[in-house]
Amino acid sequence: MNGSVIRYLLGQVIKIEGLLLLLPCITGFIYHEQLAYYYIGIAIASFAIGVLLTVKKPGNQVFYLKEGCLITSLSWIFLSIIGCLPFFITREIPSFTDALFETISGFTTTGASILTDVEHLSKSTLMWRSFTHWIGGMGVLVFILAIVPLSGGSNFNLMRAESPGPSVGKLVPRLKNTAQLLYIIYFAMTVIEILLLIISGMPVFDSITLSFGTAGTGGFGVRNDSIAGYSHLQQWIITVFMLLFGVNFNVYYLILFKELKRAFSMEEVKAYFSVVFFATIAIVASMHRTIPVFSDNLRISMFQVATIITTTGYSTADFDVWPTFCKLILVLLMFCGGCAGSTAGGIKVSRFVIGIKTVGKEMVSYIHPKSIKKIQMDEKPIEHEVLRATNVYFLTYTMIFVISMLFISIDKEDIVTCFTAVAATLNNVGPGLSMVGPTQNYSHFSILSKYVLMLDMLAGRLELFPLLIMFYPLVWKEVFSVNRFKKTT
Amino acid sequence: MNGSVIRYLLGQVIKIEGLLLLLPCITGFIYHEQLAYYYIGIAIASFAIGVLLTVKKPGNQVFYLKEGCLITSLSWIFLSIIGCLPFFITREIPSFTDALFETISGFTTTGASILTDVEHLSKSTLMWRSFTHWIGGMGVLVFILAIVPLSGGSNFNLMRAESPGPSVGKLVPRLKNTAQLLYIIYFAMTVIEILLLIISGMPVFDSITLSFGTAGTGGFGVRNDSIAGYSHLQQWIITVFMLLFGVNFNVYYLILFKELKRAFSMEEVKAYFSVVFFATIAIVASMHRTIPVFSDNLRISMFQVATIITTTGYSTADFDVWPTFCKLILVLLMFCGGCAGSTAGGIKVSRFVIGIKTVGKEMVSYIHPKSIKKIQMDEKPIEHEVLRATNVYFLTYTMIFVISMLFISIDKEDIVTCFTAVAATLNNVGPGLSMVGPTQNYSHFSILSKYVLMLDMLAGRLELFPLLIMFYPLVWKEVFSVNRFKKTT
Repeated sequence: MNGSVIRYLLGQVIKIEGLLLLLPCITGFIYHEQLAYYYIGIAIASFAIGVLLTVKKPGNQVFYLKEGCLITSLSWIFLSIIGCLPFFITREIPSFTDALFETISGFTTTGASILTDVEHLSKSTLMWRSFTHWIGGMGVLVFILAIVPLSGGSNFNLMRAESPGPSVGKLVPRLKNTAQLLYIIYFAMTVIEILLLIISGMPVFDSITLSFGTAGTGGFGVRNDSIAGYSHLQQWIITVFMLLFGVNFNVYYLILFKELKRAFSMEEVKAYFSVVFFATIAIVASMHRTIPVFSDNLRISMFQVATIITTTGYSTADFDVWPTFCKLILVLLMFCGGCAGSTAGGIKVSRFVIGIKTVGKEMVSYIHPKSIKKIQMDEKPIEHEVLRATNVYFLTYTMIFVISMLFISIDKEDIVTCFTAVAATLNNVGPGLSMVGPTQNYSHFSILSKYVLMLDMLAGRLELFPLLIMFYPLVWKEVFSVNRFKKTT
Repeated sequence: MNGSVIRYLLGQVIKIEGLLLLLPCITGFIYHEQLAYYYIGIAIASFAIGVLLTVKKPGNQVFYLKEGCLITSLSWIFLSIIGCLPFFITREIPSFTDALFETISGFTTTGASILTDVEHLSKSTLMWRSFTHWIGGMGVLVFILAIVPLSGGSNFNLMRAESPGPSVGKLVPRLKNTAQLLYIIYFAMTVIEILLLIISGMPVFDSITLSFGTAGTGGFGVRNDSIAGYSHLQQWIITVFMLLFGVNFNVYYLILFKELKRAFSMEEVKAYFSVVFFATIAIVASMHRTIPVFSDNLRISMFQVATIITTTGYSTADFDVWPTFCKLILVLLMFCGGCAGSTAGGIKVSRFVIGIKTVGKEMVSYIHPKSIKKIQMDEKPIEHEVLRATNVYFLTYTMIFVISMLFISIDKEDIVTCFTAVAATLNNVGPGLSMVGPTQNYSHFSILSKYVLMLDMLAGRLELFPLLIMFYPLVWKEVFSVNRFKKTT
């Protein structure tokens, strides 16, 4: 175990968080809010600790996947603990557990809230809440990769631990450039959405915060009715951008470099839009009596499909009162999630594409046992390792899901609440059904349940294993045995 | 495609069903029931059709897995269609769909009933209902393998298609002897249960029918309150036998041949009893206030655990009103199911053991990426093919589950009903929760839903693929192209 690299990179994360906390400070000063001083204090303290931890550069910069996973998990945990302090210290969220829940929900882009009334929050806090979505969407370690000079090829192990999808691709040969490129695309798209919302007549503050929530596919709003109170045009803009942020960012890279044919032939992206299309049709068809005006029906149905499949979690309708068929489709979309390499959560479309192809191949093997055709994606055979990892992912996911549900069921009497609370957090969606439906929140859970759901949110965002190995004794044994080894030599 | 083997074996199945129908005939004569004549008529007709189909032996007795799957699926479908005729013709179940549902539920050992009042049925029909469980438990093609002389090694493809579990093992080198041995053990254990129940004071008729239901892990009872009305001793006898019939039959074979050490060291069996043990403890602990007397609590909790994990479906309590935590454990047990190579349904314990080991190995690979330790079971490395098939099974299972639920959700407004109806049929359990809870039945579903659930029961019993390939156009193309080929040559 390379302990000094862990220390160094954690320090970088904490330092950067200090800088990022300046945004709510500025917001506070613009709106003349007294509590901006709390934000400044925490920002300075965070930055100072970060500087202290990063003064000494690690001598050995080589590290492996296990360190990559540990760094990632610890980063996200520290990020959340520091990030929740403003909520807690300003007493806007008086319970520490709740403040931590809200922050983890923010960074993991879940958008599950324990707040019953967000309109009473200060602008600084609303800005920080939404900004955590934006930071968490692309990942803070990817950000560090983009700006911190680290030698060696070890960084790929960070990217692998933080980036979603069954296989992590580099856009360009150098990882640092890939990370920069991802952030440039991310930043540019966010700015375009902000501008479009401002042009459509939305207040600047709302435009910025909602765009942060869309870009990170988070879902924290600034109004108690989420997005329902905005104009139809604004709802459509948000729908389109939610869907765009659920697309594999490789597509934008390819478009940027004018490789349009390759961009539009990506199987995962085609599957993603097909799912959106058919889910919308199914819901529109089933809702046509409840919402007789077709344009309203289409707007409301498509918004809900987009918000759930991209795991954003904004809402313009209380889908908890919709017909079971529609609810079921939305629950399935929660598990589906967006594309790999996007900011969306869920299991990811590509894993399902691989899964369905695996089943298809099995069927053929019953009929032609000697067929040795490999499963292909984007006209290339899928590596055995990716197939295996995908299968293991499904298994691990199911286990975490079941264990979480058992914990929650001690607390809640309603199976649908238990099931969708876990589904909505593990997939980083936010709203579920019943007691966690779009008009409800997570404040009523016990402290135990809240911590279980926090772990689910982190496990979902970090794609299970980086968080899971924290619970594996072997890892800690190694961490400590290395330290002992150092002391004796 | 070897069409004549398909025809021949189907004929054998139909012929044997004619013989098996004699048991309800005899029952009818003993109880002086007029409708025994209907049973005789159908038995003779079935036997006659079977004889006609098997007059000409197939010239080429070689067939492959695809034919094995087709024969199995078609056998089970014809078995059910003929088997439902007595219910329908005697008007004891006036709707054909309902009669077919009840029969498929019987043969697949599900035990999901569309009847609201079973105590009004004739003894012949009650006997036939329970007897279908016994026939379906071990499998009708395994029975044919045991008695019909078929040359060549092709028969293994029948066994593979009908027997449960990730890998099908032969007990003894000759498949015919394996099949005979399985039926001998099955028969002997059933007889022991019948005798014990009679000794405990249960009426002979009830002892026989309930033992059929236990042995096949079916669940059709002869009283409206299932098993709740019998004595505590009788409930315990049934509990023990349900658990015994959920054990891999290899264990009994090993015990029979005095290989006790191997018998008691089988990992799957140990895992199975561990699950039973811990599930019972969890439920007893959580029910101790509702049922204050410990012996009652233990009896009721353990009965419900045994009936659900073995997918039998008898009940002595309405667990639908139990705490969510208990209900959730029971729902999880539905998916777990019994051991491979038993008469129980569900996904099977061995698949979960393999799944958990796969996840464990993945965790280790994050820490020691170069480790190449193979996953082992019973001290032997698991073949790659078995691992792959297990993963594919989970995927396919999930897909069938989701698609079925979507269909059912058009019919029912309650998600828990939709979910547990599919879970209880696809896992061949019988009772679920809410509107399909232990005190409810399946009569209220629409015709579409009933057919979907029938397919689920068959898919569950035949372990998905044999039924699934019936929906794969390629298979039928081959069947027809072979016939055309024959005509032109």
